[in-house]
Amino acid sequence: MASSPIWASRPKTRGLVLDVIRAARSISRVELAAATGLTGATISEVVRELMGDGLVVEAGRGAPTGGKPRTMVQLNPLARYSVGVQLERNTCVVVVVDLAGRQVARTSFQGVAMPPERALPLVAAQVDTLLATAGVERDRVLGVGLVSYGPQDRRAGVLLTPQPTDEWLNYPVTRRLTETLGLPVLLDNDAAAAAVGEYWMGAVDPRSTYGCIYMATGIGGGVVVAGAVYRGSSSNAVEIGHISMDVNGDECPCGNVGCLENYAGPSALVRQALATPGLAQRLGLDPTAADVLTEFARIAAAANAGDTGARGLVERSARYLGHAAVTMACLFDVDAIVLAGPSFAVAGSIYQTMIQQEMDRRMFARRAHPVRIVPSVNGSDAAAIGGAVLVLQSELTLGRPRPDGEARPAPAGAAGLH
Amino acid sequence: MASSPIWASRPKTRGLVLDVIRAARSISRVELAAATGLTGATISEVVRELMGDGLVVEAGRGAPTGGKPRTMVQLNPLARYSVGVQLERNTCVVVVVDLAGRQVARTSFQGVAMPPERALPLVAAQVDTLLATAGVERDRVLGVGLVSYGPQDRRAGVLLTPQPTDEWLNYPVTRRLTETLGLPVLLDNDAAAAAVGEYWMGAVDPRSTYGCIYMATGIGGGVVVAGAVYRGSSSNAVEIGHISMDVNGDECPCGNVGCLENYAGPSALVRQALATPGLAQRLGLDPTAADVLTEFARIAAAANAGDTGARGLVERSARYLGHAAVTMACLFDVDAIVLAGPSFAVAGSIYQTMIQQEMDRRMFARRAHPVRIVPSVNGSDAAAIGGAVLVLQSELTLGRPRPDGEARPAPAGAAGLH
Repeated sequence: MASSPIWASRPKTRGLVLDVIRAARSISRVELAAATGLTGATISEVVRELMGDGLVVEAGRGAPTGGKPRTMVQLNPLARYSVGVQLERNTCVVVVVDLAGRQVARTSFQGVAMPPERALPLVAAQVDTLLATAGVERDRVLGVGLVSYGPQDRRAGVLLTPQPTDEWLNYPVTRRLTETLGLPVLLDNDAAAAAVGEYWMGAVDPRSTYGCIYMATGIGGGVVVAGAVYRGSSSNAVEIGHISMDVNGDECPCGNVGCLENYAGPSALVRQALATPGLAQRLGLDPTAADVLTEFARIAAAANAGDTGARGLVERSARYLGHAAVTMACLFDVDAIVLAGPSFAVAGSIYQTMIQQEMDRRMFARRAHPVRIVPSVNGSDAAAIGGAVLVLQSELTLGRPRPDGEARPAPAGAAGLH
Repeated sequence: MASSPIWASRPKTRGLVLDVIRAARSISRVELAAATGLTGATISEVVRELMGDGLVVEAGRGAPTGGKPRTMVQLNPLARYSVGVQLERNTCVVVVVDLAGRQVARTSFQGVAMPPERALPLVAAQVDTLLATAGVERDRVLGVGLVSYGPQDRRAGVLLTPQPTDEWLNYPVTRRLTETLGLPVLLDNDAAAAAVGEYWMGAVDPRSTYGCIYMATGIGGGVVVAGAVYRGSSSNAVEIGHISMDVNGDECPCGNVGCLENYAGPSALVRQALATPGLAQRLGLDPTAADVLTEFARIAAAANAGDTGARGLVERSARYLGHAAVTMACLFDVDAIVLAGPSFAVAGSIYQTMIQQEMDRRMFARRAHPVRIVPSVNGSDAAAIGGAVLVLQSELTLGRPRPDGEARPAPAGAAGLH
């Protein structure tokens, strides 16, 4: 089992070198030294070790620069894998990605809205089947990134919300899945995972500060600073779906009033559509449907096709999201905001255009720099892919906490594998 | 002039040791090793160097623990000083603090609402006079922390807002003040400075993530993560006065609509009081007064004294601030929020109580941990003191960027001395 560390010494230096190789796709040792600030001798030694571990391979000669041609090195993407599992209220997405973060297998299924004692064995069985089908050897799997909604106790590996059933509140999801699968499991917030996955897969500059608005059934958020997720005190940060749009708004089950989710989220739009005379019938909405995302997709598709009523609802939702995006920018001072998740899949361009307009007009520090609104590279599976990427990042890039008890805390993203 | 680095090697290790000594007030070498995770030999060497530089002195024996009594070391607070300058629209506060952050001199004056060519020489003259009066030798002054409202280009040392007069927009305030004073000057956001000053002076746990709401004429904010200011892309973060309370609210000069400042800030309350029949007369408000803070203080004092009208206005302001504080907690996941600045000076306890109530009821992650609302330790001068503390922190605790070109970026707070 690959849960033992890949290396025992200087994890940060090795992680840094590996991350530069990963991001560059193909790079020479001389360029590595320039990009990392490390000496040529250190680079040579680290690259030798990484090649010995099978993580990096040589890959031909670089373009001639007048002198001796340089041997390029690149990641060996098939050396390691990780698994991402996204648990939504009734839906589960499982992906397997290679060391470069590329998806090699995917499945999704419904029917996890049951107590964890019954749901988690189903999830584990799906992971087992997917790994077997993809032909991925188990000892090359670094671990599983399980992502779900907040609030969570990430270190303890438990959800702090009674969803989808009461039994999930405080249930040891991470420990249970670790035991069943025999693989290390980390728990994280779905939107935070989606956010870090976007940087890893190249949607944004890795040195930037950027946000992500993640919309599935609910609305979540994440902020990434120079590649590391902003964590706050307990990793329950950037809960943008539950910031208030109106001090006099209705109370939300979360305790706050006038929450964004209740104006702009898929459930709100389906409710608004059902309350609009003629619209539900015209779009073929089913008032008894349990699956909000499918009904919402109908509204989004009709908006794209020019249905005035549907378009009005989506634009209203986009204005609220733009409003929340401005708050995110005002508070986190981001360079960009990525729109990710299944609920941006259909009408993403309407959302992107309108949120960008709000941002350009309203953002406090627009004299300092613009804020770009960008579509996700990982789309509907952004959270599950992000879960898998968090495992890669935790194991490879950020390095494990040092064993010598040095006082400086480990990077925020480095903890969590159980 | 003390603008050269105090040490040339291992700044982070020395900074860490110095910060632990500072926070502990008095500590033995053995305790230092335990607190920092460094070896006894390293501690002995670093302490010897710090004593050689005059920054640390020995301070008697510790309490007997059964073995050989331990020699305690402590900061030599008079070894270095720094200056904090807060520029408000028409007011300027100047403080001088020692190495421990304790205030040794203070002055404030009005009449800086004029172009920077004329205002900055006045500020410089006040700094000179204050240092002379306090008997602080110039070569012991590490630098000047100039703090003001945002948006700013902190690295370039310019304000990105035409306040108090048009000429301030893009004027090189830092360079000009550096030339005039012959001391290094850093520019920073007033609320961010106030936030870091609170940690330094012991209002909050230095390992925590906490926010600060800073209310003077305007409303600003700061977030500190493990002692370092959250910066975002351009240090224009946590502009909480300009997050929206109402998507349908009035447009603010900043470009956003329904900004917190326009509901809960001192100018708004004075406007509301003047529009309330009988209230302005009862409180003796002057409709033509230029100084909003004095008029606001009258309303706050009347609220404390039980005037129903005044109390209603302050409570309404507190509810809006509570609402914004919940947004801050939802997004930054903070352990505490400090209320700082002159506009909390009079009715601070009303604000603290009501904001705490909103937080306890509405905060998303309250199952994970509570969020404490706490009064400032630095009070009305929090921003100026914070400016001085940022200089100390930049020079002493976080260490300067390493000269060896190592790839890891310097801590966010370490840049900026010009």
